Amino acid sequence: MPLPEPTLYPPFNVVRLSHVELGVSDLAASRAFYADTLGLQVTAEGSDYLMLRALEERGHHSLVLRKGKPEAQALSFKVYDEADLDRAADWLADQGRPFTWVERPHQGRTLRSSDPHGVPFELYARMERLAPIHQNYALYRGGRLLRIDHFNCFSPDVDASVAFWSSIGFRVTEYTEDEASGRLWAAWLHRKGGVHDMAFTNGLGPRLHHTAFWVASPLHVIELLDLMSTTGWLAQIERGPGRHGISNAFFLYIRDPDGHRIEIYSSDYLTVDPDHEPIRWDLKDPQRQTLWGAPAPRSWFEEGTRFHGVEPRPATLSAQPIVAP
Amino acid sequence: MPLPEPTLYPPFNVVRLSHVELGVSDLAASRAFYADTLGLQVTAEGSDYLMLRALEERGHHSLVLRKGKPEAQALSFKVYDEADLDRAADWLADQGRPFTWVERPHQGRTLRSSDPHGVPFELYARMERLAPIHQNYALYRGGRLLRIDHFNCFSPDVDASVAFWSSIGFRVTEYTEDEASGRLWAAWLHRKGGVHDMAFTNGLGPRLHHTAFWVASPLHVIELLDLMSTTGWLAQIERGPGRHGISNAFFLYIRDPDGHRIEIYSSDYLTVDPDHEPIRWDLKDPQRQTLWGAPAPRSWFEEGTRFHGVEPRPATLSAQPIVAP
Amino acid sequence: MPLPEPTLYPPFNVVRLSHVELGVSDLAASRAFYADTLGLQVTAEGSDYLMLRALEERGHHSLVLRKGKPEAQALSFKVYDEADLDRAADWLADQGRPFTWVERPHQGRTLRSSDPHGVPFELYARMERLAPIHQNYALYRGGRLLRIDHFNCFSPDVDASVAFWSSIGFRVTEYTEDEASGRLWAAWLHRKGGVHDMAFTNGLGPRLHHTAFWVASPLHVIELLDLMSTTGWLAQIERGPGRHGISNAFFLYIRDPDGHRIEIYSSDYLTVDPDHEPIRWDLKDPQRQTLWGAPAPRSWFEEGTRFHGVEPRPATLSAQPIVAP
Amino acid sequence: MPLPEPTLYPPFNVVRLSHVELGVSDLAASRAFYADTLGLQVTAEGSDYLMLRALEERGHHSLVLRKGKPEAQALSFKVYDEADLDRAADWLADQGRPFTWVERPHQGRTLRSSDPHGVPFELYARMERLAPIHQNYALYRGGRLLRIDHFNCFSPDVDASVAFWSSIGFRVTEYTEDEASGRLWAAWLHRKGGVHDMAFTNGLGPRLHHTAFWVASPLHVIELLDLMSTTGWLAQIERGPGRHGISNAFFLYIRDPDGHRIEIYSSDYLTVDPDHEPIRWDLKDPQRQTLWGAPAPRSWFEEGTRFHGVEPRPATLSAQPIVAP
Repeated sequence: MPLPEPTLYPPFNVVRLSHVELGVSDLAASRAFYADTLGLQVTAEGSDYLMLRALEERGHHSLVLRKGKPEAQALSFKVYDEADLDRAADWLADQGRPFTWVERPHQGRTLRSSDPHGVPFELYARMERLAPIHQNYALYRGGRLLRIDHFNCFSPDVDASVAFWSSIGFRVTEYTEDEASGRLWAAWLHRKGGVHDMAFTNGLGPRLHHTAFWVASPLHVIELLDLMSTTGWLAQIERGPGRHGISNAFFLYIRDPDGHRIEIYSSDYLTVDPDHEPIRWDLKDPQRQTLWGAPAPRSWFEEGTRFHGVEPRPATLSAQPIVAP
Repeated sequence: MPLPEPTLYPPFNVVRLSHVELGVSDLAASRAFYADTLGLQVTAEGSDYLMLRALEERGHHSLVLRKGKPEAQALSFKVYDEADLDRAADWLADQGRPFTWVERPHQGRTLRSSDPHGVPFELYARMERLAPIHQNYALYRGGRLLRIDHFNCFSPDVDASVAFWSSIGFRVTEYTEDEASGRLWAAWLHRKGGVHDMAFTNGLGPRLHHTAFWVASPLHVIELLDLMSTTGWLAQIERGPGRHGISNAFFLYIRDPDGHRIEIYSSDYLTVDPDHEPIRWDLKDPQRQTLWGAPAPRSWFEEGTRFHGVEPRPATLSAQPIVAP
Repeated sequence: MPLPEPTLYPPFNVVRLSHVELGVSDLAASRAFYADTLGLQVTAEGSDYLMLRALEERGHHSLVLRKGKPEAQALSFKVYDEADLDRAADWLADQGRPFTWVERPHQGRTLRSSDPHGVPFELYARMERLAPIHQNYALYRGGRLLRIDHFNCFSPDVDASVAFWSSIGFRVTEYTEDEASGRLWAAWLHRKGGVHDMAFTNGLGPRLHHTAFWVASPLHVIELLDLMSTTGWLAQIERGPGRHGISNAFFLYIRDPDGHRIEIYSSDYLTVDPDHEPIRWDLKDPQRQTLWGAPAPRSWFEEGTRFHGVEPRPATLSAQPIVAP
Repeated sequence: MPLPEPTLYPPFNVVRLSHVELGVSDLAASRAFYADTLGLQVTAEGSDYLMLRALEERGHHSLVLRKGKPEAQALSFKVYDEADLDRAADWLADQGRPFTWVERPHQGRTLRSSDPHGVPFELYARMERLAPIHQNYALYRGGRLLRIDHFNCFSPDVDASVAFWSSIGFRVTEYTEDEASGRLWAAWLHRKGGVHDMAFTNGLGPRLHHTAFWVASPLHVIELLDLMSTTGWLAQIERGPGRHGISNAFFLYIRDPDGHRIEIYSSDYLTVDPDHEPIRWDLKDPQRQTLWGAPAPRSWFEEGTRFHGVEPRPATLSAQPIVAP
């Protein structure tokens, strides 16, 4: 097993993924996609940005859209408390990793750094809280997204990515191994007790592969497909619906108007046990990707969102998965 | 519009499709597929046959499996009463179409004939009735199929097929037109008040494309996929799940151990109005096949079950639909 | 068995129930209920009326709301063609039942009569047709009602009601018998091939007990409950959700702003066979009402909508069902 | 707000609830209920006991049934690691609470103690792990329970119960306040990141009100109701289905053959944020119990399972909720 030992007592306590900021070319189009079609709630807006939350969330935002190039600015995570921010800063300093303190609206002290491949991430402990709306059913529409679930990134070296994120307490729940080389082809890691907060897939990277939002039922995925395919969003449907072998999730992948990939994700399982055993998948097993057998389209393996200012590099592992012809 | 006028007062009254007899090579394998996995109930069996019904049906059988070549023997339909059988015989004689009276177990007088392309069909008025089991929920398992829904056949000349079946009272609900030639590429026709009892698709024919069974919800389709893909039936999953543009049905296509295609079909709509207007689709519209955009695999367009003793002929219309690469 | 023989060749051909006209006190409140909350589409409106259709329907309307007393004007049914209207008129004349020809907007010749207890009904063959909207998923909201399904009336003498409606071709699918008297306590009768177009329940009558609309899945019922209970309609929820033993339907009963009862009805089964055997239930079997055992509230057994100009009379059968304390 | 401050750095780390041991009079009947009907997997059995797990669980058991009086032996919780057991022992000693080390099959060192009202609880860090079965869909049957979700106990003094469990790190997510007295009527507390691992309701206590298991969808609840009501378990259905206002869960309450109450629980929401704000409900709000308005039956408020050797005492708060008449 090529996995590092889990770090059961990490240097600081990341509670969960929190939000992502994406550059978009047309805020009105993005609003039509994310608010009117996927059903996110706009919680703040200005001439060059939109902030949104999903229906179950009480943090001020889980998605920030800012007019600009179609890049991702950072993946953001919530830590347990303010002391964890200081512990994180100390640890990053010890590791020789650069970091800065940045100002972000609607949230407290924020620490910005990056992983060894350059994935920019930000940590904060407190964000403005909003009143619950999960029982305001009049607000439910379109995709009825309930909460942000995870990020998935292309990595040029998944072993190295997993080593770094494991060292800060992320625990692997499932992984794909290239049997020939004994190296990781992909891995899913969590903090919040589900299958993942963060995942890495072998490929030209670092790039953001997708951001996932959780919905309550496969029927909500089907209804979103019906809506998108009859309201002008047909071309944005990329892959699915299907059941992943990995994570056992019912999934749909769509592309926003700028090509940022969003996963609509249902099902999941509880992983809070510290002795929860990772599940190994073989790169040659097509049920890994889709339990029901259908391979993913080529675009799904190749296209992704660049991180601002980070030049992606080719993967060091050349093994390839099965792709739809 | 290339459709014939509907025959509102047909020469005899077909109530609905009833059952199909398929040749299979291994009864035990077929039983594992249809009874254990799809959830049909075995209502009779012998050394060389199995008879089955779906959970909502009270007729003795909707599927007959007989050891032999992987062919279809006939598509069977129930007529309103015994007098309709005599009216059917008279009408067939008038039309110069051959017919015979045959004996079939568990059912009354049975008239066997064929359509102009050679599709063998049988008509009967009364079949042995069984006690209801639709509220015996302990019997629900696997696919939980509720009732036979429709047949779909390849036809070498869909215009001619529709002309014949319309003349005996089948009413077109949806159809695909090849705009260039003004000819029918496919048509869906009903008697029982849903989208179809019988459909025709342009292709090497006549051959049986599939037999469909109705389930209550897309979730049952998803659960059947989960079951099949983890119990050795992965290779039998051919296409889906998806939403057809035509019929608006949520579908899954699977192949039985002998390659006979079964559609698991959910959703439908009421078509009992005699002035119910057919919906026209353009052959070039990919949402016709799948509302969500994914084209069907080539096998779905090319493979089918032969009817016993009937040599299929190439289609006279050469226009082709969009196929997955 | 206290049922009359089914009339397999009725004097005229009723295709299905079509629509009902209800008097309402406040059109804006009714619109908020039926259009905004249940999801019906307004197809015509004036200063004193609203016409609506469900999402799968192509006839102009299945519900007419007119400002006035909270009464029902008539239960309307579609017949096969114009000749059936004349056959109906001839038959009514033969039976000595009064009838008139009336003008109704958006529909052709209309025949108005009543059953022996005074239930007013109207027959027509052709209504203005509208373009399909069942794949305009942007229109789906709230209850997402797909089609009108059935009427249910209190009858002072269910045996007599069933005798009349059977004589015009309605076929009993399920019925409740009072074993002590051998009389019918309730009956469900169909024309369109499902469990019912029309039902009768013993009680002060004739009165309209409810009008039912069909939805695709129990999840839609649950989502409607969530919506109603958080948008000011909590008091309109009367009974459910539950599974009827009779009809096997998943149900919810709600009351509109004037107290007219609407059933949201999911599931059903096919009954097109002319030899489809009715299912008998015993009045003392509580699973008849709710398969899962919960009795109905007293209001459900006692309250209903009067028909305009018809004075209800007490039931002649005094046996009583189990009622929630 | 009558809530204590949350203990963000508790004396030891409870990961989640783990399992309960219940006394039952007839193991065969209990097996028919829990394994054949609810769908739990038997993982060990002897002449006087059964151990079971739900389909997503990898710990050896979440339910232990032992032949004997219909009592609960203890509520069990998993702690993070062995050191947490020692920290727990130290803390209990500090608090003057009695505890013992006990032997339990299939698990490591186990610490047994009780809360101030006498609720017996056990803590362990490591239990035998079993291979995953969540993708062995052939094992899914009946209720298809996925995991144990929470315990709910009657407490004679909810304020005192919440004070104790808060002091060991349980965080309140929702609570019901009696406005008149300013005291807690009920509270829901979690460790694992959902609405609760443990809840308390005002009443004769301590007694176990119910143990809840999580299912993926309301449709699974409905299918379990259909199955139970047609396989001899009708009398075991106590309350539901419905939506709780509190927790927003879709629920069903059933009673096992010995009267132990089981909740089938679907939906939930993520509560991992340490600053997650509790939601307050008023005791007089009937939507608290059922969002859709229906009150609970009296038995639901009055009946529960005794803990072995613990005599329940009347509640000190006399305010009462709305109960079905």
